[in-house]
Amino acid sequence: MKVAGVMSGTSLDGIDVAIVEIHGRRVSTIGFQSTPYLSEMRRAILSVSNTTTATHEISRLNFLLGELYARAIVRACHRFGPVELIGCHGQTIYHEGGSSTLQIGEAAVIAERTGVPVVSDFRTRDIAAGGQGAPLVPFVDCLLFHHPRRTRIVLNIGGIANITVVPSGVAFDTGPGNMVIDALVRDYTQGRQNFDRGGRIAAQGNLNRPLLTRLLGDPYYRRKPPKSAGREQYGAEFVARLKRTELLLVDLITTATVLTAATIAQAAAPYSPDELVVSGGGAHNPQIMHHLAAFLPGVAIATSADYGIDVDAKEAIAFAVLAYRTWHRQPANLPAATGARRPVILGKVTF
Amino acid sequence: MKVAGVMSGTSLDGIDVAIVEIHGRRVSTIGFQSTPYLSEMRRAILSVSNTTTATHEISRLNFLLGELYARAIVRACHRFGPVELIGCHGQTIYHEGGSSTLQIGEAAVIAERTGVPVVSDFRTRDIAAGGQGAPLVPFVDCLLFHHPRRTRIVLNIGGIANITVVPSGVAFDTGPGNMVIDALVRDYTQGRQNFDRGGRIAAQGNLNRPLLTRLLGDPYYRRKPPKSAGREQYGAEFVARLKRTELLLVDLITTATVLTAATIAQAAAPYSPDELVVSGGGAHNPQIMHHLAAFLPGVAIATSADYGIDVDAKEAIAFAVLAYRTWHRQPANLPAATGARRPVILGKVTF
Repeated sequence: MKVAGVMSGTSLDGIDVAIVEIHGRRVSTIGFQSTPYLSEMRRAILSVSNTTTATHEISRLNFLLGELYARAIVRACHRFGPVELIGCHGQTIYHEGGSSTLQIGEAAVIAERTGVPVVSDFRTRDIAAGGQGAPLVPFVDCLLFHHPRRTRIVLNIGGIANITVVPSGVAFDTGPGNMVIDALVRDYTQGRQNFDRGGRIAAQGNLNRPLLTRLLGDPYYRRKPPKSAGREQYGAEFVARLKRTELLLVDLITTATVLTAATIAQAAAPYSPDELVVSGGGAHNPQIMHHLAAFLPGVAIATSADYGIDVDAKEAIAFAVLAYRTWHRQPANLPAATGARRPVILGKVTF
Repeated sequence: MKVAGVMSGTSLDGIDVAIVEIHGRRVSTIGFQSTPYLSEMRRAILSVSNTTTATHEISRLNFLLGELYARAIVRACHRFGPVELIGCHGQTIYHEGGSSTLQIGEAAVIAERTGVPVVSDFRTRDIAAGGQGAPLVPFVDCLLFHHPRRTRIVLNIGGIANITVVPSGVAFDTGPGNMVIDALVRDYTQGRQNFDRGGRIAAQGNLNRPLLTRLLGDPYYRRKPPKSAGREQYGAEFVARLKRTELLLVDLITTATVLTAATIAQAAAPYSPDELVVSGGGAHNPQIMHHLAAFLPGVAIATSADYGIDVDAKEAIAFAVLAYRTWHRQPANLPAATGARRPVILGKVTF
């Protein structure tokens, strides 16, 4: 079955569409395409997300976002061929784990414009079943990377880094991913680069061991899962504290790069993985990959692409897989990861 | 198939649950139960419907309403037996025909609490297909009351009265239903009665012919359908104008009762119906029924109950029928009534 997965995250970068072919557990990526939001759209979403708003604004934005999702999907299908099912995460405008969640981007508009059934609203049922409504991707990690004898850790290095232990389904945020490195790089390059392409800057600096040791002292890293690291934890304030050390920016970048790898390795080691499968932007950074290998001797290091899953598309692909499960009326939450009382069928189907 | 239909209208009276048995076109009512909203709930819904609100209020109310719907359904099922499918209209907090619409009452919560699949969000797809997202009940009228040779007019007398011509599917508001009579009765009985039980008050008054003639002069009654009469059209201002005539209140009640019947009859006559099938609160008013028969000689007057459809439960029953259609992936909008470009499958399914 050919399925499109559509993700647009809280970073408000835009709309990611992945087209995959699914045969049972086997998932292969056919294509992936990102459509950035226009800045007016980003503003409109922020205005209904954070503040007091008018109900009609939410109602209208729900339909407008549906149109944008539909256009992004139609574009992707023109390029990569038709699909039989769409899984659309929607844009989260409110989320209170265990209580309520609200995603917009009207599925009826997507279904009408594309002529393809849509699964949407993936998080509500897990919350109805007593869960946090998140994270949902670990279920897909377990499905895709399960091995009868090997323990694999599926690692996503986005702004924050998170791991899923497969097959146990333990899943949590390990700490910083790219966001500290990215902020320092923007500073170092005076805005010309948003990330450390090829890890070239980190390769030029020196690791500051006393600073690394101090950063690793954060009690977050010793806390038992489940745990999640907020974006605010590694935001502007964290970066400002690093800069107050008055070390060279290039050395801070190197040290932040090692911190990402070290905290991931510390989190992963207790599960004695045979293999680490990396996705997310950080998979493109050879310095992070190199340090991970050094910190985890004896652990095979792979990327999700080695298993047919484009490293940048993994989240969008996950919602294609979750939609496929819903379509076949199979549960797709992981109680070990979300805290739900039981496995439930996620989402709503619009024919 | 046993199906529960759940309706809660913009009058904010509460939650109506109808349980029906459906075999193809044959629908019979098993039971019907209303659960009034608590006044806090009514206030909470109004506060997100009319004014500027916080997104988290909508998100939380969506989940809370889901819990209330689930409880109302579970109560009805305890009394009338289990169902295999639920159709829940939800509470409209915004509706702009042809543009966007927003119903709340989280279906995932209903499905989780009841263990029964839920169809929700019936209006969005019709709007996505270029329609007004309303009215949806005429489709059910055509399905239930279709006759190979006879033209039937299905009449619902709620606050406003509306008709569906079967089989053509022409559907529109004819004018006042009960709302003018009810307002005058509240006045006449100093609040002891909310409606003219058994039409007894109207039976005691005298029709004022000059006033009736003047009221029938309203150009609305001559306009061609599609047309809809707002509640504001027959609200406090209309009643105040009647009272300025200084006629006896009891005579105004009689005249308003005849006005309801006369405007319905004028609207129905051009379609040369063989039969009028009445539902809604007005079906309980023998005076309205009597005047309808007098204004429409040669037309058989029946109530929906004569066809197995409880007159008070028709709206809730309609959403059970619409859910059944969605479950079987059959279109269920009536382009002649909504203005949509094509028939579409309505709603979203939560398993």
